Parts: sequence; structure tokens; C-alpha cells
Amino acid sequence: MNERILAEDNQVVRRFFALDTQTYKPGALDVKTKEMLGLVASLVLRCDDCISYHVAQCKEAGVQRDEFFEVFSVGLVVGGSIVIPHLRRAVDLLDQLEQGSADTGATSCPDHA
Amino acid sequence: MNERILAEDNQVVRRFFALDTQTYKPGALDVKTKEMLGLVASLVLRCDDCISYHVAQCKEAGVQRDEFFEVFSVGLVVGGSIVIPHLRRAVDLLDQLEQGSADTGATSCPDHA
Amino acid sequence: MNERILAEDNQVVRRFFALDTQTYKPGALDVKTKEMLGLVASLVLRCDDCISYHVAQCKEAGVQRDEFFEVFSVGLVVGGSIVIPHLRRAVDLLDQLEQGSADTGATSCPDHA
Amino acid sequence: MNERILAEDNQVVRRFFALDTQTYKPGALDVKTKEMLGLVASLVLRCDDCISYHVAQCKEAGVQRDEFFEVFSVGLVVGGSIVIPHLRRAVDLLDQLEQGSADTGATSCPDHA
Amino acid sequence: MNERILAEDNQVVRRFFALDTQTYKPGALDVKTKEMLGLVASLVLRCDDCISYHVAQCKEAGVQRDEFFEVFSVGLVVGGSIVIPHLRRAVDLLDQLEQGSADTGATSCPDHA
Amino acid sequence: MNERILAEDNQVVRRFFALDTQTYKPGALDVKTKEMLGLVASLVLRCDDCISYHVAQCKEAGVQRDEFFEVFSVGLVVGGSIVIPHLRRAVDLLDQLEQGSADTGATSCPDHA
Repeated sequence: MNERILAEDNQVVRRFFALDTQTYKPGALDVKTKEMLGLVASLVLRCDDCISYHVAQCKEAGVQRDEFFEVFSVGLVVGGSIVIPHLRRAVDLLDQLEQGSADTGATSCPDHA
Repeated sequence: MNERILAEDNQVVRRFFALDTQTYKPGALDVKTKEMLGLVASLVLRCDDCISYHVAQCKEAGVQRDEFFEVFSVGLVVGGSIVIPHLRRAVDLLDQLEQGSADTGATSCPDHA
Repeated sequence: MNERILAEDNQVVRRFFALDTQTYKPGALDVKTKEMLGLVASLVLRCDDCISYHVAQCKEAGVQRDEFFEVFSVGLVVGGSIVIPHLRRAVDLLDQLEQGSADTGATSCPDHA
Repeated sequence: MNERILAEDNQVVRRFFALDTQTYKPGALDVKTKEMLGLVASLVLRCDDCISYHVAQCKEAGVQRDEFFEVFSVGLVVGGSIVIPHLRRAVDLLDQLEQGSADTGATSCPDHA
Repeated sequence: MNERILAEDNQVVRRFFALDTQTYKPGALDVKTKEMLGLVASLVLRCDDCISYHVAQCKEAGVQRDEFFEVFSVGLVVGGSIVIPHLRRAVDLLDQLEQGSADTGATSCPDHA
Repeated sequence: MNERILAEDNQVVRRFFALDTQTYKPGALDVKTKEMLGLVASLVLRCDDCISYHVAQCKEAGVQRDEFFEVFSVGLVVGGSIVIPHLRRAVDLLDQLEQGSADTGATSCPDHA
């Protein structure tokens, strides 16, 4: 679907996708920190696809289980109990990733080019 | 899933879940009123899992069908037409609960410990 | 301002304002309950003008201080710490209303016709 | 489901549904413009059912593919990357509608009477 | 402030500001339509600064008063009564712009480079 | 105001404030990282009081200007142009803090006990 969208003749949409990718590149902050920022932002905005993507990216960047739960705790306290259903699904995905059983197709690139 | 989350060594998350449960205990306001408050808050924030949970809790606390629709009307007017798809699903669940056919597993504890 | 808006030749806007007023009339639920529903919805959506209006309406409908704090607690737990600045201002207004010093002009009809 | 909801004895809900329908009738702005307004509002509020409805209505009102992508670009830039998963599903539906293969039942009236 | 932000050595932020400006350039849709899209998106997301900016831009692009109220009506119905305080301020600014008395400093470029 | 709220006989509210404070204590993640998480969450939820608080806390925890702008860039890209007015005010506060001229009263404890 990303390919189809990027094939469209709309420069704003294409540039936005490129900018989104650029945002998480290492800079003053490393990839691990930036992905945790993306995860907590997705949690409080309650978007399951974005949460799944950033959980997978965080895992790949070396975020440990106790660190994940501290990111979750910030998202939960800032965003409130309305975040809980999304937190459950995030923990479920994390469990699957740790067991090597997550469907990688399901977690690939929900909000990035 | 709640058990798994509560088994984690993260005190903030565990305390949040406990606080969430405590919030709906009877106090100056009774359980019925508190559950209606939880329902309207879930409606305007548009979280289907939370709405389903509070519809089931409200039903158990004695909220009548005409009272449900007045809670829905507040949620609809405050939150706007963007609430409508969630309202449909809430009414569908309410119908099932009144017919005794709702899958109780599906409606148990979405946002509570 | 309401008068100016209602004087416009836009039937949808005028009807919405009328519907908003109708929503809080007594029905299966009494005014006190409906105003608490409006207050908690405004809290989790974090609109100071709407919160102020419903605090004043709740006060007039007989909501007691301990009941107010239970409405606040539902809004806080559902909506998270992002609600806190609004909660502070709500408590400040409540204190003023109890002391008879609130500027009634400031709290009149922010979201109603 | 709409019929069931409109059969309820709740005048506020019924009037809201009628007002929602009235909102998109031609007036100073034509139906095409109004449906694009409904679409961008649904995009930034991230409601898939509402987005699907307005994509179908826009298509019927004559919105062209390049126009759709400009509406999408406004929604994406105003609402941010959190909109992307919804944008994907909107493009997918648009593709289906252009190929005449969309399940019209799935896209009929999600947020209208 | 924009100049200060654009002078920072952060390419993502600078590119985002450029993209934001590009979004409202004429394309398949004209500036008037795009600004109305920006206005309704700002209304339902309830950002006064963004609403003020797009009201001023819409006025400049030739949006008439009855057209403004139809944009407002879509924002109000989609977003609900929580939009009303923002609608009041939008109408107040529109009145000032029509009387030539709006502080243009206050309405210049809130969300654009 | 915090003292007044904490003096109330409402255990849920008091516990929530305590939990909010606990959330940002060092654990698996250090204070600097947690405060950046709190900042980006506040940015995408667009709460000026919370943003100001976390900007001040981040500054105190040693976040550098280029790091601040990377946090801002994540908030901006995830949350969209609707975040821009809040970003401006955040940069303005950061400038004041760097010049030692920020009114510390204005930035103390907006969302914490």
C-alpha cells in the first residue's frame, strides 16, 4: 500500500512519508530514544497500528522489557485508562515478539514509508 | 491479559489498574452514576472496548434502556457525529445484553483490573 | 455572541444550539445527573469553557463538593494527567462559586444557547 | 441499525441524526465541497467508518483521484503521521470504488441517518 | 518566532514547516477549497490559533459569510458541542475581519511558515 | 492549588497525583528519558501547561537544545501542524529558560503534585 501511495502524483503526501522516515533517524538522540518517543506518542493518541509499529521498532533498537513497561507507564498515566485496551494489545505483541512468534507482516511499517 | 500485566514488576502500571478499579466503587455517588460517567467519557473519547465494558457495567448496575439513550444523547451532542459509529456498536451490545445473548467474555473488563 | 450566532441564516447551527439545550433537560435522568455527564465529558475532552459551564450548572443542580470530586476522579482516571491543568481550574471555580465570588458572566453559557 | 436507533423514543438522538443528514445538503456550498469537508474532518479525527462513508459520498459527488489526494494531504499535514493508517485504508477503499469492487454494504451510511 | 524556529539546525522541523505551506498551494483543488478544509480540520481539533489563521486565509481567498457558516456547521456537527467555544471565537474574528478591525498581527501565520 | 486538591477527602484524586509523581522517578529509564517521553506525549495531546512543565523538567534533567528539537520534531510529525502553535510556545519558553528569564512560577508543577 505504501508503494501505491508513493506512486501517486501528490508531492505533499510523498514528502510527508519521507519526512516521517527521516524523523526516526539517529541524530542528537539515538534511534532507541526516538522510537520510545514515537511509541509513547502513539499510545496517548491511541492508534493500534502505530503502537504495533513502534513496539517492533523499539524491540529491534534494543528496548528491554522493563524499559517497555516504563514507556507504557508514562503513556498510561498521561493518557489515562482509555489507553488500557491499547496497552493490552501492545503487551500481547511484545510477548509474541519475545517468543519469536509475531506475524512480522502485521507489524511492518504501519506509519512509515 | 490483565493477570499478565499485573504480574509485571512495574508498580506504576499495577497501581494505575488498582486506582482504575477503585474509581468506580460507591462513594458520594453510587455505582450506577459512576458507571454512566465512565460510559459517557468513553463515548466522547471513542474507545469501543471501554464503551462495551461500561455498557455491561451500567446494565448490571440497573441502568434502564431510556436512561442509556439519555447517556448516549449527551455523548453524541458533546462529541458530535464522529461518535455515531461507536453509538451503533453500543446499541447493538445493549440489544444483545437485553436478549441475554452477548458474549460475556467479549465484554468483561476491557479497561479495569 | 449566542444571539449573534442564532441570528445567522444557518439552520444547522441554530438547530444544533437548540439540540444542545434540549440535551440537558430532565427526562429519564434528572438534570443533576445529566450535568455531571456533561462535566465529565468536558473534562476528558479538556475544554475549559465547557468545564466551567457545567461546573456552574452542576452547582446549581445541587451537586455537592464530595460528589464534584468523584466526577473529577472519573475524568482524571479516564483522561489521564493531561486533565490535571483543567481540573485545577475547575476546582478554583468551584471554590469561587462556594464563596459566592465567581464572575457569573465568565461562567454563563459557554456551550449552550 | 439506524432504523433501530431512530425507532427509539429519544428525541435528541433522532434530531441529531436528522441534523447530520441536513448538514451535507447543498446550500451556499455544494455537496462535493461539503463532503470533502466531512472527509477531512473524519481523517484528522481518525474514524475509519466515517472516513469510508465520506470517501464513498465524495466519489459519488464527483471528487476526482487527484482531488482526493489533496484532501488526504491536508488531513495528513494537519493531523500528522497518526493519520497514516487511516489514509492507507481510505486509499484502499478508493481503489476498490474505482474498480467497482467495493462492498457497498460496508460503506453505506456509517455516520448518517 | 517562525524565523527563530526555521533558523534552528533541525531539518525535520524546517521541512515540516515548508510542507505545511506547500499543502495549501493551488493544485487540483483551489486555495479557497483548501483553506476551508484547513479551517474545518482546525475546528474539529479545536485549536484557536489554527482556526484564526484559516478564518483569515479563507476570508482572503473569497469565502463568503454564508459559506463560512456552512463550514462551521460541518465542524460543529462532526465535532460536537465541545466545538462551540471555538466557534464563538471564530465568529467574533470573522465579524472583526468584516469590519476591518481585526488585529492582523494576532491572525498572522499561527500554523504556517 | 495542588495543596488544596490534595487536602480534599478524595483518595482517588490524591493517589493519582502521587502516581503521576512516581511515574517520572528514575527506574529502568533515567529521568531525562522519562521527561522527554512526558514532553512528547504532552505535545501530541496539545496541553500548554503540561508542555511547559516538561520543558522545564527536561532542561533541569540536562536535555540539550538540539535534543529538544528532536523531541519537538517527533511531536510535530506524529501530531501534525495542529501542534505548531504549542511548539512555538515551547520554543519561546526554552529560549527564556536558556536566558535565565523564565518566570519559574509559571512553569512549576502544572501536572504534578
